Amino acid sequence: MLKEAIYHRPKDHFAYAYDDKTLHIRLRTKKDDMQSVFLLYGDPYVWEDGKWQFAKKEMMKSGSDSLFDYWFIAITPPYRRLRYGFELCSGEEKLIYTEKGFFNIPPSDDIAYYFCFPFLNKIDVFQAPEWVKDTVWYQIFPERFANGNESLNPPGTLPWGSADPTPTSFFGGDFEGIIHRLDYLVELGINGIYFTPIFKAPSNHKYDTIDYFEIDPQFGDKQTFKRLVDLCHQKGIRVMLDAVFNHSGYYFAPFQHVLKHGEKSKYKDWFHIREFPLQTEPLPNYDTFAFVPTMPKLNTENREVKQYLLDVATYWIREFDIDGWRLDVANEVDHQFWREFRQAVKTVKPDVYILGEIWHDSMPWLRGDQFDAVMNYPFTNGVLRYFAKNEITASEFAHTITNVLHSYPNNVNEAAFNLLGSHDTPRILTECGENREKVKLMFTFQLSFTGTPCIYYGDEIGLTGGQDPLCRKCMVWEEEKQDRDLFTHVQKLISLRKAYQSFTRGELRFIETNDETNHLVYTKTYENETIVFIINNSEREIDVALPFSLKGKKLTNLWTNEQFAAEADQLKATLPPYGFLILKIEEWK
Amino acid sequence: MLKEAIYHRPKDHFAYAYDDKTLHIRLRTKKDDMQSVFLLYGDPYVWEDGKWQFAKKEMMKSGSDSLFDYWFIAITPPYRRLRYGFELCSGEEKLIYTEKGFFNIPPSDDIAYYFCFPFLNKIDVFQAPEWVKDTVWYQIFPERFANGNESLNPPGTLPWGSADPTPTSFFGGDFEGIIHRLDYLVELGINGIYFTPIFKAPSNHKYDTIDYFEIDPQFGDKQTFKRLVDLCHQKGIRVMLDAVFNHSGYYFAPFQHVLKHGEKSKYKDWFHIREFPLQTEPLPNYDTFAFVPTMPKLNTENREVKQYLLDVATYWIREFDIDGWRLDVANEVDHQFWREFRQAVKTVKPDVYILGEIWHDSMPWLRGDQFDAVMNYPFTNGVLRYFAKNEITASEFAHTITNVLHSYPNNVNEAAFNLLGSHDTPRILTECGENREKVKLMFTFQLSFTGTPCIYYGDEIGLTGGQDPLCRKCMVWEEEKQDRDLFTHVQKLISLRKAYQSFTRGELRFIETNDETNHLVYTKTYENETIVFIINNSEREIDVALPFSLKGKKLTNLWTNEQFAAEADQLKATLPPYGFLILKIEEWK
Repeated sequence: MLKEAIYHRPKDHFAYAYDDKTLHIRLRTKKDDMQSVFLLYGDPYVWEDGKWQFAKKEMMKSGSDSLFDYWFIAITPPYRRLRYGFELCSGEEKLIYTEKGFFNIPPSDDIAYYFCFPFLNKIDVFQAPEWVKDTVWYQIFPERFANGNESLNPPGTLPWGSADPTPTSFFGGDFEGIIHRLDYLVELGINGIYFTPIFKAPSNHKYDTIDYFEIDPQFGDKQTFKRLVDLCHQKGIRVMLDAVFNHSGYYFAPFQHVLKHGEKSKYKDWFHIREFPLQTEPLPNYDTFAFVPTMPKLNTENREVKQYLLDVATYWIREFDIDGWRLDVANEVDHQFWREFRQAVKTVKPDVYILGEIWHDSMPWLRGDQFDAVMNYPFTNGVLRYFAKNEITASEFAHTITNVLHSYPNNVNEAAFNLLGSHDTPRILTECGENREKVKLMFTFQLSFTGTPCIYYGDEIGLTGGQDPLCRKCMVWEEEKQDRDLFTHVQKLISLRKAYQSFTRGELRFIETNDETNHLVYTKTYENETIVFIINNSEREIDVALPFSLKGKKLTNLWTNEQFAAEADQLKATLPPYGFLILKIEEWK
Repeated sequence: MLKEAIYHRPKDHFAYAYDDKTLHIRLRTKKDDMQSVFLLYGDPYVWEDGKWQFAKKEMMKSGSDSLFDYWFIAITPPYRRLRYGFELCSGEEKLIYTEKGFFNIPPSDDIAYYFCFPFLNKIDVFQAPEWVKDTVWYQIFPERFANGNESLNPPGTLPWGSADPTPTSFFGGDFEGIIHRLDYLVELGINGIYFTPIFKAPSNHKYDTIDYFEIDPQFGDKQTFKRLVDLCHQKGIRVMLDAVFNHSGYYFAPFQHVLKHGEKSKYKDWFHIREFPLQTEPLPNYDTFAFVPTMPKLNTENREVKQYLLDVATYWIREFDIDGWRLDVANEVDHQFWREFRQAVKTVKPDVYILGEIWHDSMPWLRGDQFDAVMNYPFTNGVLRYFAKNEITASEFAHTITNVLHSYPNNVNEAAFNLLGSHDTPRILTECGENREKVKLMFTFQLSFTGTPCIYYGDEIGLTGGQDPLCRKCMVWEEEKQDRDLFTHVQKLISLRKAYQSFTRGELRFIETNDETNHLVYTKTYENETIVFIINNSEREIDVALPFSLKGKKLTNLWTNEQFAAEADQLKATLPPYGFLILKIEEWK
């Protein structure tokens, strides 16, 4: 047994409260090193004859990546306390693994050897809003979705879709436009909209806020925004806004005050200013987002700034009933601010969704005291590399996804914000070399994946474009210019997602990953429901034989609604190039 | 290279802010697998010609345990942001390790591959009070330290030291007694007292609180306590009290109210009651500490309870100017409570010390938002097994200590509460089979170790006793019954600790661990000061040759104050059984 590969450390994603009764325990071992792993566990205070009393239960292998196997078990300790260790079995060999290292037989004279989950306190349980798990998001970049009121057009607005966007072009998208197109979104089936910033700001993207309490006039007024939110709610659509709290814009009044009054400004501590007077060349002498002088970093440690931003955060919930905040550049803002942010917004609306923009591994923000989710770019990255770019094989893709799933607790994964692209990445159709069939497979995977998926406006009808600003083209509304086939594909997946909980909540198992044919077989299982997904990510037709017996089982092809009973031991299917098959199995297990 | 052994994950103890400018980065690899490791690092926003610009700097090996090597580097990123990866070198082989896995050459087309320390926000930096690092604590169990006012003796009080203590015996220790003995403590050299509970409670240990706002009358009144604190402060001694917030006592008024009024009690949500009426047999039907019916667990998630306990916490600081809280059974109380606790007490007194009683690995409480330290029992355990019980060899001891040090950030280690024993463990002299020389070596190691050491009352004069209640014997005040030689040893170590910062803050390196002779050589280095410690943990005289050249260096034997210049390449020394040598080296590196 390779001791160096064995890893466990409470709490985080290795030992965590899944709900107010259940603990999840995970262990990592070298790939294919152990035949079986058992949890040794008990209440710390149950002793008999000077010996600690513990039970033993087998763990299941919940996944593997290129180096490691991951083991899992759920435990419900009657007194909400647990001490535990692991018994590792490899052939004849047995090893006990504890906090104090390795033993041949489990020590029972002291519980100090064992790992400790001291007490399951409900308030510490990570809990994202339940509705998020059943939400399919649609991301709208308001300047580019629909122009419904030309009188609001900023000076120099170009005719809708008349040119590729530049960093400074305007096309006049606004709230009226979105209101007119809500039925389109209802038809697609989404039930959440994430708006990139709408507050007063000079740029087309509005990440350079002038006033956090005002709507940018090019989008409309507060009344129109209120109408938009109300209409969304009437149609069962939640609304999430973008909070740019890491930095303000250059024309934010407090920053202007500092520019004008320098060290004498009462706002001088609202920013991170290294010296006065302020300079922008060669580099700003104040902290900024990246090195962008027009985006001065806000000092979120300052009491006044904190109060101001928390007032902003609660104002839009209280007055407009928004349902979520997406937090821009979230990881550069201090943890303490986010803890207070969570307390403040959840006090006003307990089921508001808090989504951080973090591109990296994000456990430190997902411990229950800060965010409900982060933008799951590690997921995005895996999907793009396998489906769009052919940079990794089927098995490497499975390893990547297994790794993503094992980087966080299950309750975190269930609320993860899984996107294929955004206003910050090239369009997926462009990433796929304009191969629409590949885009369909990406949507199939995304919309069958546990968490809360997000569709970037226009991806569902085949918009193209490279890196920003090209990925921010105007939405195309002429049906004949839309890829309606792709639209129908996404629409159907969303309706399946709504019908079958194993799409939204189910546990994913990779059943087969074939690097020769480049095809994938995975199951999603939730309670008694299991669905098999077969995905042919290749330009060739392939024959797939399912590697388990389904004889006698009733199957439903969820795409065609065709029902049949498997007759042979092994189910065989022929998949066209980039084809897929979604089979629901009755009485599985 | 063994990829399975390589581990790094920000933040916690692998990538953390050491102060408001400095990041510490650590990496774990298989023992003896790498010749060298380099950090590849840069600001995420510095690019040239489409390539990310990064620098390269060698890391140093900061320690090894039985399976792993640990690598360390301190970095001061000019804009407080960092992306980084590792270059691992083993012979001709090179490997790049990043958040996205392994590469042969460092990718430079995207920073998403790399590990991320997004921004060093000052407010998130773990910061224990500076004074703690220069404190030597003395733990007093008030019932057993000194009886200064016999009129306060509870009924049935036994004559001082007339019998071995039982779970229910009283000897009448009190505040007056402590006040009379303060000069003894000043003579010893300690400058912090940790008192086990002093609030109103029926037992002799007072962990079963009746009233958190009252002093137990057997110890004195508030005026006397105030006098005691003031006298301590005059003598440069800080005072830490014990907060038993996990559970109350049975006679705590709110619990009595629930016992009397059942479900109708306004305090019914102050506890975790599973059903009414309350029962204690066969097991309590309400949550308790362990299964002790007289210690009902407090519901610290309840707003009123929280407010009540935070009022307690701030009251004793505000009114009596205490300097620290030791938190009993700290890990069974919710994290959210401790976050609010920290905010509350640090608001009243910013440099108050918060010490959690946790016996296990404690990273989740030491991230800067909760505790300043935990009772470092993993340290205790290693010291006991090596020095007292001979259960592990010199090298195993070094591995244990290295492991302890690498379980936490350095700034956490610098404030760690390092104890040899407490009211919850057998007396160290008893653990050593009454071998006083072994006890001396334990003190030598403890008092040369970075962190904040604590001496359990009486250990310095050779009190004996097994597990509680025997480890809670009356302090012996007759000098002829005290081990004055041991006292002088401890006193001298404390004075050295005060004189040389490498004792308190220095970085520890194990230079030699010899499993045959069972001796140890380690250095402590702080800034330009290096001290070598040689410890002979055996009953034989040994000859030790230092495994590095000191030729021409001036050396000072800190125990004898003898100065000499090393003449030979290799310094040789003869150590008697259980002997030790403490040498300060001038101009070392």
